[in-house]
Amino acid sequence: MSRVFKGPFEVISSRHIYTNPWITVREDEVIRPGGTESIFGVVDMMGGSSVLAMTDDCQVYLAREFKYGVQDYSIETVSGGLEQGELPLETAIRELREEFGLEAREWISLGMIHPFTNVINSPSYLFLARGVEMKHEPKPDPGEKIEVIKLPFAQAVNMVMRGEITNGSACALILKAHFFLEAEKA
Amino acid sequence: MSRVFKGPFEVISSRHIYTNPWITVREDEVIRPGGTESIFGVVDMMGGSSVLAMTDDCQVYLAREFKYGVQDYSIETVSGGLEQGELPLETAIRELREEFGLEAREWISLGMIHPFTNVINSPSYLFLARGVEMKHEPKPDPGEKIEVIKLPFAQAVNMVMRGEITNGSACALILKAHFFLEAEKA
Repeated sequence: MSRVFKGPFEVISSRHIYTNPWITVREDEVIRPGGTESIFGVVDMMGGSSVLAMTDDCQVYLAREFKYGVQDYSIETVSGGLEQGELPLETAIRELREEFGLEAREWISLGMIHPFTNVINSPSYLFLARGVEMKHEPKPDPGEKIEVIKLPFAQAVNMVMRGEITNGSACALILKAHFFLEAEKA
Repeated sequence: MSRVFKGPFEVISSRHIYTNPWITVREDEVIRPGGTESIFGVVDMMGGSSVLAMTDDCQVYLAREFKYGVQDYSIETVSGGLEQGELPLETAIRELREEFGLEAREWISLGMIHPFTNVINSPSYLFLARGVEMKHEPKPDPGEKIEVIKLPFAQAVNMVMRGEITNGSACALILKAHFFLEAEKA
């Protein structure tokens, strides 16, 4: 490998560690900006979309599900990975329909976050879906067991602040939506 | 391995994939709640603390640095991993001192987030440090090249909303601090 630089890092070597259908892990041996050698284990993961589904009377739909990574139940906004060729908004629309049976009147992009910039490469796109209505039977993935929770948006914000919602994308999305809606009112 | 359940998942087998000083990757073969078999690649990572450092005149300190996972420069709140035996607040105080040379008058816990609940187990503890003052020479890790940015807090909030700050923990922390400070005023 000839001299390859990634930003201020010189990459000495890179080896593949692991791949499954969702994540790939590699280890890079690098010279850091200060001149010392180090390694990075980097997790590449498909990107995903998260949706805050809101009715016209400011109720939101959340999902409570056992999340395997943290080995605990977690209350989150509906989310899913981008499938081949899908745009983030298309993923968001599909996930909202499949998991909750909802259609939205209006879609607002609230940007993208990176869950963990130092180790994980997996953009998470955030959407506020307004004017949602139940139009279909939900058809969640048969391997999933999701409890749907409907509650006032203000309560969801309080759940973020009290630490009852901890998923990073869900926290960022709910608080961004709060800020967006406050600015709209002003 | 006898029948092991993790929440509604039955774990058929678990194998170690990779370890470095920061992350461990394993693959679990499971039966999902709906009865289908699947695998999970799970990344266990040490927890960390993130600090929003604020002066009494509502200026905040942020760090701009090349982040290896996303292969790009990123503007973030100061953060670091918990060292052996360290409490999250101790990590926060140490990181703020080492990276920025700052001491705070008051520390406010703004809870914990999980960056990616389905795949990664690594709690990120969030702190607002108020009344910060420069008391030391910063002593950043010699392998790091950090640009310190000082700007009005309102501008940091706008950078989150405009997608100029994308790190999940930084976004959650800045917006939680905004919500906390607004509630305090009311």
